[in-house]
Amino acid sequence: MTNTLLSSASREVVIGFEQPFVIIGERINPTGRKLLAAEMKAGDFSRVEADALAQVAAGAQVLDVNAGIPLADEPGILAETIRRVQAVTDVPLSIDSSVIEALAAGLAAYEGRPLLNSVTGEDESLERVLPLVSKHSCAVVAISNDETGISEDIDVRFEVAKKIVQRAADHGIPASDVVVDPLVMPVGALNDAGRKAMQLIRRLRTELKVNTTCGASNISFGLPNRNGLNGVFLAMAAGAGMTSAITNPLHGEVMLAVRGANVMLGRDPECRRWMQAYREPNPDAGAGRERRRSNRRRA
Amino acid sequence: MTNTLLSSASREVVIGFEQPFVIIGERINPTGRKLLAAEMKAGDFSRVEADALAQVAAGAQVLDVNAGIPLADEPGILAETIRRVQAVTDVPLSIDSSVIEALAAGLAAYEGRPLLNSVTGEDESLERVLPLVSKHSCAVVAISNDETGISEDIDVRFEVAKKIVQRAADHGIPASDVVVDPLVMPVGALNDAGRKAMQLIRRLRTELKVNTTCGASNISFGLPNRNGLNGVFLAMAAGAGMTSAITNPLHGEVMLAVRGANVMLGRDPECRRWMQAYREPNPDAGAGRERRRSNRRRA
Repeated sequence: MTNTLLSSASREVVIGFEQPFVIIGERINPTGRKLLAAEMKAGDFSRVEADALAQVAAGAQVLDVNAGIPLADEPGILAETIRRVQAVTDVPLSIDSSVIEALAAGLAAYEGRPLLNSVTGEDESLERVLPLVSKHSCAVVAISNDETGISEDIDVRFEVAKKIVQRAADHGIPASDVVVDPLVMPVGALNDAGRKAMQLIRRLRTELKVNTTCGASNISFGLPNRNGLNGVFLAMAAGAGMTSAITNPLHGEVMLAVRGANVMLGRDPECRRWMQAYREPNPDAGAGRERRRSNRRRA
Repeated sequence: MTNTLLSSASREVVIGFEQPFVIIGERINPTGRKLLAAEMKAGDFSRVEADALAQVAAGAQVLDVNAGIPLADEPGILAETIRRVQAVTDVPLSIDSSVIEALAAGLAAYEGRPLLNSVTGEDESLERVLPLVSKHSCAVVAISNDETGISEDIDVRFEVAKKIVQRAADHGIPASDVVVDPLVMPVGALNDAGRKAMQLIRRLRTELKVNTTCGASNISFGLPNRNGLNGVFLAMAAGAGMTSAITNPLHGEVMLAVRGANVMLGRDPECRRWMQAYREPNPDAGAGRERRRSNRRRA
C-alpha cells in the first residue's frame, strides 16, 4: 500500500492505492492562454485566483501551478502565483516548471509539503531536481523519458521510471514520494497508446509499487468529443491502477469518470459522494422543492 | 484468443478477446414493461420491431429477445418474437428465457447460430440446457450461480463458472462457446461489488479464457445517475477483460463508454468508428450545414 502525503499549511491530501482518485487541477497554466499569461506577467492574479476557486469547487483536491511565460521572470511569477493561490484556497499544490530556478523559488514560497512537477530520467534533471526534493522533503512527479526522448516501448519507459526511483532513493527519497507519469500519447496518432498506457500503469503499480499521474487529456488530442474520451480513459486508467491525474475538473465527463471509478473500486464508502454529486439534477433542486411546497400551500 | 461466433441467416458477429466490445441490446423484454407485455401477448409485435430497429441503429450488434409474460404461452410467443425480429433485422439474437420449453421453441424458430441465454450451475439447468446447446451447436450464456444461490465470494462464483465450462465440454461444447456472466451485484447495496466484478472478470479471462457478458445496469440499482455509472462500469469492465454486455444502446453514456473502451483497447483501427460517431454534434449536422449554406446563398 503506497501513500504519498501532500499538504498545505492546514490540509493534507493522500495519493494512494486505497485512497479516492486524486484530481490535480490543470487550469493554472499560461501555456496556450494568452490573456492569462499577460495578466500574470503584469502582476494581475485575479484570474488565477478565480481558476483556483472554481477548480476546488468542482472537485480538485490538488492544484497544479505553472508560470511558464516566454521572456518573463518565471521564478518570481511562479513564487507569487503560489502565494496568491495559497491565500485563497487550502488545497496542496503541484509546483510545475521545467526551469530549476523556478522550482526552487516555488518551493521557497510554498507553505506545506507540495508535489514538485517534475523530474525526468535525464541526468541533468536527476542531478538538479532530486536534491531540491530531498532538501524540502516533498514529493515529486517522475516523467518516464530520458535523453533519448519518449520511447514507444513501454519496457523502456518502465526502466526509466525504475531508474528515477532508484536515483531518488540515493537522495533519501522513498519510492512512495515518487509519483510516476507514464506519459500518455495521443491515441489518434498512435492507435495502441491506450492499451500501452494501461499496461504500463499496471506494471508501475504492481512491480514498482508507485503512485501514478498523467496529463490525461493528451490521450484525446486531435479527436472529436475529447472530454468524453478523456473520461473513458480516466475510468479505465483508474481501473488499471492509476491513482491521480492532472486534468480539468470543470469538465463534467472527467468528474463523472473519477467519481464512478471511486465507486467501482470501493473507494466511495456507501456511495455517499456519488449520491451527493448526482442526487439532484441541479444544485438548486433542493431549494426548488421547498418552493414547490410553498406554492402548494398557497394554492 | 477466444472467439464466440454468432450468426443470423446473413450476418456473423464475433465476441472475442481482440474484437470490438459487443453490445447485446436488452430492450426486447416484457419484464417491467406492461404495455409491451400486453401487446406481445395479443400478437402485436410492432413495438418489438421498432425496439429491434432502434437498438440496431444505436449500435447493438446482437439483440436479446425475452418473452417472459406471466400466464402466457411463453414458448409460442418467444418463437414468434424471434421470427418477427429476424424479419426486420439481420443481427444475431440472444434467446432469453428461464423456461426450457421456451428456449427449445426459440431455437427451432431461429435461423443461424444464436446465443442461448442461459444455463446456470444448477444440475437441472445443466442437464436440460446443455443438450439443447449441443444439439443446435450454438453458444450459451453461463450464469455463475448454482443451487446455493449467488455467492458473495468471487472464488465460489469462479468455481461455478469453471464447473459449467467443464460440464459443457462433456457435451462437446467448447469453452469458446460459453460466455460467462459473472453476475454483477448493485454497488449501492454491496460496496465492493464493482471491485469484485473487475477481479472476477479478469480471472475469467486470464485463467478460464472465456468470453464474458453481464446485465450491466444492475451495478447502478438504487443510485442516482444510473446511466452515468453504467457507462463508467462498462469502460472499466472492458478494461478488465469483459467482451460483451447485455445493456441499453439507446443510452448515450453506454455507447460512449463502449466506443471509448474500443479506442483505448486498440479495437477501433485509426479511431474511425469514434470519429464517425462524434465528428458532428448531431446526426443531422451534415444536413444542417447544407441548409445553412443555402441560406447564405439566398441572403
